[in-house]
Amino acid sequence: MINVAVLGFGTVGSGAVEIINEKDFSKKLGEDIKVTKILDLRTFEDSPYGNLVTSDFNTILEDKSISIVVETMGGTNPAYDFTKKSLLAGKSVVTSNKELVATHGTELMQIAKDNNVCYMFEASVGGGIPIIRPLCNCLAANEIKHIMGILNGTTNYILTKMIKDGDTFENALKIAQDKGYAEKNPAADVEGTDACRKIAILASLSMGKYIDSTKIKTEGITKITLEDVKYAEKIGCNIKLIGQCKKVGDEVFAKVSPVMLPYENPLSSVEGVFNAILVNGSATGDVMFYGKGAGKLPTASAVVADVIDIVNHKGLGAPYWEDGGKLTDINPDNIKMYIRVKASAKDVAAKLFAKVSVICDSADEYVFVTDEIKEQEAENKIAEIVNSCGEDSVINKIQVAS
Amino acid sequence: MINVAVLGFGTVGSGAVEIINEKDFSKKLGEDIKVTKILDLRTFEDSPYGNLVTSDFNTILEDKSISIVVETMGGTNPAYDFTKKSLLAGKSVVTSNKELVATHGTELMQIAKDNNVCYMFEASVGGGIPIIRPLCNCLAANEIKHIMGILNGTTNYILTKMIKDGDTFENALKIAQDKGYAEKNPAADVEGTDACRKIAILASLSMGKYIDSTKIKTEGITKITLEDVKYAEKIGCNIKLIGQCKKVGDEVFAKVSPVMLPYENPLSSVEGVFNAILVNGSATGDVMFYGKGAGKLPTASAVVADVIDIVNHKGLGAPYWEDGGKLTDINPDNIKMYIRVKASAKDVAAKLFAKVSVICDSADEYVFVTDEIKEQEAENKIAEIVNSCGEDSVINKIQVAS
Repeated sequence: MINVAVLGFGTVGSGAVEIINEKDFSKKLGEDIKVTKILDLRTFEDSPYGNLVTSDFNTILEDKSISIVVETMGGTNPAYDFTKKSLLAGKSVVTSNKELVATHGTELMQIAKDNNVCYMFEASVGGGIPIIRPLCNCLAANEIKHIMGILNGTTNYILTKMIKDGDTFENALKIAQDKGYAEKNPAADVEGTDACRKIAILASLSMGKYIDSTKIKTEGITKITLEDVKYAEKIGCNIKLIGQCKKVGDEVFAKVSPVMLPYENPLSSVEGVFNAILVNGSATGDVMFYGKGAGKLPTASAVVADVIDIVNHKGLGAPYWEDGGKLTDINPDNIKMYIRVKASAKDVAAKLFAKVSVICDSADEYVFVTDEIKEQEAENKIAEIVNSCGEDSVINKIQVAS
Repeated sequence: MINVAVLGFGTVGSGAVEIINEKDFSKKLGEDIKVTKILDLRTFEDSPYGNLVTSDFNTILEDKSISIVVETMGGTNPAYDFTKKSLLAGKSVVTSNKELVATHGTELMQIAKDNNVCYMFEASVGGGIPIIRPLCNCLAANEIKHIMGILNGTTNYILTKMIKDGDTFENALKIAQDKGYAEKNPAADVEGTDACRKIAILASLSMGKYIDSTKIKTEGITKITLEDVKYAEKIGCNIKLIGQCKKVGDEVFAKVSPVMLPYENPLSSVEGVFNAILVNGSATGDVMFYGKGAGKLPTASAVVADVIDIVNHKGLGAPYWEDGGKLTDINPDNIKMYIRVKASAKDVAAKLFAKVSVICDSADEYVFVTDEIKEQEAENKIAEIVNSCGEDSVINKIQVAS
């Protein structure tokens, strides 16, 4: 029997307890797995697992029968402290906590390695979508050239409502909150922080070196308006919040931003709370992973897959990266840019961007898509427009993917 | 150093040799991997690996330094014999050979187990798409409820040409042959045999018991005409060749057939030679895997991932199923059916199928989609139309997915 402790009896934690304790793994694994202790400050008298709950972490740490700890508390404190202590005590740790992995993953994986246990985090990116393990194992024969992903279901739900139903950002956010898809304070989602932590984890894994999420250029979806959505439609695109990273020599270019994706792009049709991650490998070309990026059972299922993997593989081939990844701000590839300026800035914009496809040229505004151009060059020219015509002359700008 | 032999220096085999011998795995795995012998009857004087080629399998079998054999010969003979001998000699075997896996997989996996080695076949389904390993490991916490997949790139290319460019089946097949996507004798692809072997492998794996591909009801795409494609468009669908399987109690329902997929279905927009597999798990819901289903480097990359897995995990958690899976012919779910009959059969058809959406009611033909109905009931009624109005009164019938 493998005994497991779960830290945090919230949505994901309770899902993991249900899957583990209600399923019989003995046939598949040769022995069964059971959750024997749950850490939470609350009491759960109505839950069939209420009797497993303790508020004292030390009773878990000192319980030698527990070999695997599932951490689904979220946040860095006390999750960091509990994880470190568990690993040092020779227990493997499985987590869904992207903030902790993106912040302290390098140290925690090294402690795990030094103590012959595992630190695994399949559930930290893409919820129920298998992505960490495929990156580490299935695509091991490839050099990962770039990754593009819809990594946050809340923003994708909001954008889908705007695209499909013509809801404004504010209305769509409200509906997402009413449905429980967005939190009361939606900042981490709509400002791109959550997606940023996830692309940092994927970048670190695929490059083998730690990329600091706090250094990644991140723009959320709060500036996207219904007008942008309609202009995107005119050029056959959907707007999505995209996390991307690319290998550039020894460095990594990474960013999170809204991107206009042509309908033919497989990410373009990913709707609602679904996530999808497109990985480009040197041998395999484009491979996409698609599914529910959040939710109790999908995320818990990824947590439990890690637990099973530890039992099955004794921790061989666990995810790992070293310290010292280098970020570059410079996108190595040419991009196209959708730019929307006030009519008063048209002449300046038209002079700076000579070759463009015009989407709208009205008394109010001048909207166009540039030819392929270096991202930095486009940004410089946009700064020039602002310089000449004033702070509010550029209404919006969004990368257009090919 | 891990020494590998490759059987068959064709497209996939030569790709595997290139990836293995041109990449340095020592940092990732602690030791490097090299192909030291290649079995082929031909000689390859221009290849840098020509000196590794032997035509005598016994020199590989008796070479104790070789611990992993990659079989990319295709067909069951002599691949079956060579695989069996290799496993009995204590060598792990990795294959891309779906025919062999679908035919003799049960026996070969058992021999592997008995000899503490592995028989692995990630490349046998979906080419470069990771699917076997995710099914075995990443989704291990789930009960797999059903699988639907576009499993054959050749037929998907042909259907895409028909849908996008209005090419007839014959023209599209000719173009596919000219481009090297279809073989001179395209029967295994266009008649669905290839897709059928792949869905049999996925069904066996996800149910844990062997499903015999030769017993699966299989219909190819040879009867699909441009008219069907246009009617599908009218109801917002693309026609795709779909392999599907569903768990029904202790039995499995499986079939291969063309299906009309609404544009919202994530499989509907999978175009050209791409493959995609939608897996529905009890906890994770729908998860989709997408990528190139064939080609030298994508398929070779899946082969090499298996080789790395054997080195990394010492064969723990290799795919496995027992003998004795039971197939049922009866689809447990209600389906909708697109039915196209000659105008002369309209009255009979309209009487048998009372509740329908009519797509076309012309002097030539009567085309409709049924309401939800048991598949068997629809088939019985279609048989009645044929009985009353003659063999050629039913022009075509295709399942419509929701």
